[in-house]
Amino acid sequence: MAKRLGKYTIMLDKKVYIHSYGAVVGKMEGQGPLGRQFDLIFDDTSMGEKSWEKAESALQKEALDTALKKGNLAPSDVDIVFSGDLLNQCIGSTFGMRNRDIPFLGLFGACSTMAQTLAAASVFIDGGGAQKCAAMTSSHFCSAERQFRYPLEYGGQRPPSAQWTVTGSGAVILSDVKPEASAATCIKSAVFGRISDLGIKDANNMGAAMAPAAAQTIIDYLSDTQTGQSCYDMIVTGDLGHVGSELMIDLLNREGVDLGAKYADCGLLIFDRNEQDVHSGGSGCGCSAAVVCSYILNALKGGQLNNVLFIGTGALMSPTSVQQGESIPAIAHLVHFSNE
Amino acid sequence: MAKRLGKYTIMLDKKVYIHSYGAVVGKMEGQGPLGRQFDLIFDDTSMGEKSWEKAESALQKEALDTALKKGNLAPSDVDIVFSGDLLNQCIGSTFGMRNRDIPFLGLFGACSTMAQTLAAASVFIDGGGAQKCAAMTSSHFCSAERQFRYPLEYGGQRPPSAQWTVTGSGAVILSDVKPEASAATCIKSAVFGRISDLGIKDANNMGAAMAPAAAQTIIDYLSDTQTGQSCYDMIVTGDLGHVGSELMIDLLNREGVDLGAKYADCGLLIFDRNEQDVHSGGSGCGCSAAVVCSYILNALKGGQLNNVLFIGTGALMSPTSVQQGESIPAIAHLVHFSNE
Repeated sequence: MAKRLGKYTIMLDKKVYIHSYGAVVGKMEGQGPLGRQFDLIFDDTSMGEKSWEKAESALQKEALDTALKKGNLAPSDVDIVFSGDLLNQCIGSTFGMRNRDIPFLGLFGACSTMAQTLAAASVFIDGGGAQKCAAMTSSHFCSAERQFRYPLEYGGQRPPSAQWTVTGSGAVILSDVKPEASAATCIKSAVFGRISDLGIKDANNMGAAMAPAAAQTIIDYLSDTQTGQSCYDMIVTGDLGHVGSELMIDLLNREGVDLGAKYADCGLLIFDRNEQDVHSGGSGCGCSAAVVCSYILNALKGGQLNNVLFIGTGALMSPTSVQQGESIPAIAHLVHFSNE
Repeated sequence: MAKRLGKYTIMLDKKVYIHSYGAVVGKMEGQGPLGRQFDLIFDDTSMGEKSWEKAESALQKEALDTALKKGNLAPSDVDIVFSGDLLNQCIGSTFGMRNRDIPFLGLFGACSTMAQTLAAASVFIDGGGAQKCAAMTSSHFCSAERQFRYPLEYGGQRPPSAQWTVTGSGAVILSDVKPEASAATCIKSAVFGRISDLGIKDANNMGAAMAPAAAQTIIDYLSDTQTGQSCYDMIVTGDLGHVGSELMIDLLNREGVDLGAKYADCGLLIFDRNEQDVHSGGSGCGCSAAVVCSYILNALKGGQLNNVLFIGTGALMSPTSVQQGESIPAIAHLVHFSNE
């Protein structure tokens, strides 16, 4: 039985283990600083499919297949897949999983989806609702651009605050049984965030819209658990980018919270902003998914990291809400990874 | 701790009680056979808002407020809201809940959302991840038509197999504490469905696309639990409509399963097809939400029903996938309501 700690934190009781994981990305992500950490890099980001949406579904299939293979599992070993994405009606996920014959629980949390699926699947396993779950998500630069911004052919100018949607997918298999690896990484606790909306209306500045949500969830968790940054090896948001990260640090400082050198952001880790033309950094569900399912879980597995807070951030607007003059609500969900 | 029974069924261990619920609908739903069962009927389905999308968000707010009021609760008493809807990026839910300051877990399951949110929230409560949750969803005829089909002004012709999207919302407050009412309704078990796609491509025939998913989930549950229709007072799908219901009955018969007179469909309950011009019946997330949160939970509370299987069905396509010539994947999630 999980227990609630403070107002917002869910402390898991059983150990929910990271059984295996996989990250697959496109060419540009493969050329970035984390290139060697990914399982598969596709030079042809069409994935041989006839549309970008089908390509995104193919990425999810590849990510799940990779995680299953690395974990020596068959699809039928998975009780429930938790998945979602940015596309209208989450077709990246539903079409990706439609032939898998695995129970499917669709989630929507925009770019917070990786944290959200990990957190929800963990609560299910802890409570006995499942023994093995897949938590996954994806994004694709080309499907996101044409849905949320302009057709690629239009060649629209991007402001410096804009982030670059990652082409990639990450999948984690969570299990109630300890895997055979020497060190075992668990999910210990989670927070589902509250929606925050401070009135940002610029759809080219998602970082600013999401920063208050990230700050709120981090403060909620540190307050509920009576811990500080010294208790963790890394506190990583996904994906505020350069602009949003600076704003979040400022918001936390005003509340007396200093994350210091422990702080990192998936949107800043995945690309080299000096060498790659990504403006404020990476974004999209696939950004934190690919970073968590490679660099971060690799470092936990290798013992370079032992305690990590991962805060997935999502901007919950749609093109329709932006056209109707609405501001951008945002959310941030947190999971705590810890080695046994 | 929940237990898995057979391959697909989650048997809850603790009692997860229906604390309270509310259903709000538009004028046409109010004029239907269940009109007297709804908490609120809005003659002006714009809800005084400037767009249909904002009106749909207002419906969710009203449904939650009604459920909270009937349950004598404040928003801060709710640990997590589970919600989703049909609109791109689920803005009916996110904008509806953005000022509530309640942790938010967004789900996407198209018209299966009411069953999906109930099932997921129940597993959370059973496992100790939350004490009180709201499970809710909405749809609006006007926001759905212009997003999925044509602008209303175009006056497109509807084929007989088409269903009519319900304008409405339903919210259930689930709790680990027994409410004060004499009879107490619980959720006892749940199944998260597998995605099924038999190749239907007609977006005006959702019932046919969803029927195989509904049949599959019902067979999975009856097989896992070794029960038959005689064990239940009602087995209700939401929302196959006339065409889909006939197909599902046929599919079940071929597998030797006969639901007999126990079978009902929310899409056929909410409208009078002889008097109201709704073709194959009602649909949309708000259809089963409004029917479950009025007629069905009222009958359970009053003891006219004691054991009900509710199977929410969803068609997981998007306008983009339809334009790309894809078939329509579908899913069905099940919850078992039972009086103590």
